Amino acid sequence: MATVADLIVVSNRGPLSFQLGDEGRAQLAGSGGGLATTLQPLVAGRDATWIASSMSEADHLAASDGLMNVDGMTVVTVRLDADTYRMAYDVVSNATLWYCHHHLFDLPRRPRFDVHFVDAWDAYVSMNESFADEIARLASQGATVLVQDYHFALLGKLLEASRPDLRTVHFTHTPFGDPSALRVLPANCASELLEGMAGFGACGFHAPRWKAAFDACYHEDDLTALAGSGVAPYSFVAPLGPDPVALENEAAESTGIDPALERVVGERMLILRVDRIELSKNIIRGLFAFEELLDEKPEWRDRVVMVALAYPSRESLADYLAYRSEVEHTVERINDRFGTDSWTPIVFNVADDRSRSVAAYMEYDVLLVNPVRDGLNLVAKEGPFLNRNDGSLVLSREAGAFDELKSGAFGINPFDVTETAAALHGALGLDRDERAERARTLKKLVVARTASDWMEDQLRIAGSLER
Amino acid sequence: MATVADLIVVSNRGPLSFQLGDEGRAQLAGSGGGLATTLQPLVAGRDATWIASSMSEADHLAASDGLMNVDGMTVVTVRLDADTYRMAYDVVSNATLWYCHHHLFDLPRRPRFDVHFVDAWDAYVSMNESFADEIARLASQGATVLVQDYHFALLGKLLEASRPDLRTVHFTHTPFGDPSALRVLPANCASELLEGMAGFGACGFHAPRWKAAFDACYHEDDLTALAGSGVAPYSFVAPLGPDPVALENEAAESTGIDPALERVVGERMLILRVDRIELSKNIIRGLFAFEELLDEKPEWRDRVVMVALAYPSRESLADYLAYRSEVEHTVERINDRFGTDSWTPIVFNVADDRSRSVAAYMEYDVLLVNPVRDGLNLVAKEGPFLNRNDGSLVLSREAGAFDELKSGAFGINPFDVTETAAALHGALGLDRDERAERARTLKKLVVARTASDWMEDQLRIAGSLER
Repeated sequence: MATVADLIVVSNRGPLSFQLGDEGRAQLAGSGGGLATTLQPLVAGRDATWIASSMSEADHLAASDGLMNVDGMTVVTVRLDADTYRMAYDVVSNATLWYCHHHLFDLPRRPRFDVHFVDAWDAYVSMNESFADEIARLASQGATVLVQDYHFALLGKLLEASRPDLRTVHFTHTPFGDPSALRVLPANCASELLEGMAGFGACGFHAPRWKAAFDACYHEDDLTALAGSGVAPYSFVAPLGPDPVALENEAAESTGIDPALERVVGERMLILRVDRIELSKNIIRGLFAFEELLDEKPEWRDRVVMVALAYPSRESLADYLAYRSEVEHTVERINDRFGTDSWTPIVFNVADDRSRSVAAYMEYDVLLVNPVRDGLNLVAKEGPFLNRNDGSLVLSREAGAFDELKSGAFGINPFDVTETAAALHGALGLDRDERAERARTLKKLVVARTASDWMEDQLRIAGSLER
Repeated sequence: MATVADLIVVSNRGPLSFQLGDEGRAQLAGSGGGLATTLQPLVAGRDATWIASSMSEADHLAASDGLMNVDGMTVVTVRLDADTYRMAYDVVSNATLWYCHHHLFDLPRRPRFDVHFVDAWDAYVSMNESFADEIARLASQGATVLVQDYHFALLGKLLEASRPDLRTVHFTHTPFGDPSALRVLPANCASELLEGMAGFGACGFHAPRWKAAFDACYHEDDLTALAGSGVAPYSFVAPLGPDPVALENEAAESTGIDPALERVVGERMLILRVDRIELSKNIIRGLFAFEELLDEKPEWRDRVVMVALAYPSRESLADYLAYRSEVEHTVERINDRFGTDSWTPIVFNVADDRSRSVAAYMEYDVLLVNPVRDGLNLVAKEGPFLNRNDGSLVLSREAGAFDELKSGAFGINPFDVTETAAALHGALGLDRDERAERARTLKKLVVARTASDWMEDQLRIAGSLER
């Protein structure tokens, strides 16, 4: 391929995913998942090249055949051998860096960095080097390179060395770990990560707290000494917003809430949550809060249903399977305890079905978004945008989006089941005027920044970099 | 009691503990445990009043009868009803604040603050109020009050209100949690804790990092806004040191290493660890590091024995029992894997026996102190002081003592088993001159500050407070 691109977007997943079909040919399997789906319309029409991982042999074939090219983008995939990719993606990115930035480690026991991790880190370095080579090959002189997420922390330094002419901007869609969290990583990994990030022209975050944590890492003596330079890169806050046009289209096409679900909820009030089944999402404490609500405020029994729409996630990690089974067990226990012939207190529904979520967003009375730590949380923005019922938002103060939405939401400490139960009680009991007023406030806050604003920020900042 | 004291020391445990004996009389059961044992000689001879909890009915009887008075001190105990004490001590102090300051929570699952915790917090408030009342009753005008540890965070504000004439100094023997860790607590608890601490004349810590974390809590918008005042109290760093005279006496009285242990170790080198069985002590990763050493450097097989002298701790908490069984299981597995008829790789010995520890301190080749987070760690100071074998110290960078000892110790990241194994290898393989040189450096660093220096700092700072 001889494309020479002025704009390159880098993410682990590409816009489409493929599987092997008849005669060993690649067949379209679906979209690339959350972030890629969000990026696609933002990158479309910009004559960009999108570089992603080959998640499978089918992805590789599809990309080589140009089948991944959508909306006028050229999609190029980087293919690593399966072991290298597994170690870089599963072991380092998902089971270590994700945990680190979200403060998910059970520190008395995990992580336990041993000789196997040394190999895994080498694989992560190798994955970053392969991407750096591909970018260097494809980028025009002075091109803009927008790098997404913690999978590619080392690209900054690598590209600074090989292609100092490029305008590189890294954006972290997760939180960024506090200095104490970074200090958990093996010393060489923490320092390589911070050095790698320091090579970008700019590093962006969804919320002031994540930017502050990032900056602080460069001001801690021990981490800084390891990082060598001690000079923090330019960093900025640019939260993502919803895509109003796409959401309006989805709403217009909605055929309404699933009839089976409609029967279960009936005339009752609806508390909704929509998440990946993910340790950071705090599904279990959400269930306990609902249980405490039914215990402490029995007047809500039989008058409210909690619907949890959940998407399976990372089921190759044992920790995630265990978490899913804890969630299911808790749902069963609470339903056994309070359920009646005509009332199922909690509906836990596992299927990756966007239209089902959109219909539920339109109808909820209360949306519960209670992550223990979350880069932004787009559910907290899409829900209030789509809702047609003056629904309320109960939102964790540990979600990046809280900084923007706090004046319209019920803020909660996600570790505090009692405060969460009280917020649900407060939200369910609002009178009509208050509900409408809060819903208006939320909608105004949500549309204040759209997805395009986020993309324009990236490009503006890239353009302003001195090279 | 009509004592009016110019110096009051406050700690949860008193210098002695009692049990009920014949005819319901209190009989001496033993010392008050780590901190109380350290404090006792420092307080002796100062005509002080020591206020502690009645841990049992026997303690209460003993204190009332004056049986707790030792070394010229008057010991007064505060008696709470059993439920209040259990909730304040087990639930709040040990299972919440200890975990918070040591970053021990498995955040996706624990803590889960619910209605029971609301009651437990009330008990903690009540315990602090009872102590405040007792102090106010016993303290002379302008008296100095030295308050020990996280059990009494609220005393500052309470005493400021009732007895503004007092010179109050709080000392935290644990680490202090980062702002992110404090934010895990229910909002009212975090703010009451910070407000409570802000009422002390001064707050002391063992290491600069804990002081920095404490100060930072008062500069975070959300925590500060909750704390009300937003004004950080005066804080200082004053690490505790060993008591050289007491240690020399213990060494002089030592009858040498236990013969049974001597037979197991024989001519082999000795890696020693001495800890409470406590989640923060990181015993399991220490065992894994020893296993990695035997795997990666097989030349050490049959040439070294790891001796872990462990003291049972907090066995009323299920988490601690589970941890102990994980430790025991890991010891068995490694011994099964590598042990021979003539070599037991790991000796795990559970008994609270100080003279056994002293003898082992005198003999070790390598002392392993690898906590995940630790206020100071006095083992890391007492070991090098007592050792007669030019032994080395492998020390966690997350222990408060690392700040003082780093130029003499092998520093490790406690989460990094590979780095720990490499440090053990390096320490075992030092040549005689290097060993001696490092051991001299360590001894010099250790005696640079003694326990008396620490006590003098408390009194000097108390004396300098404007009242």
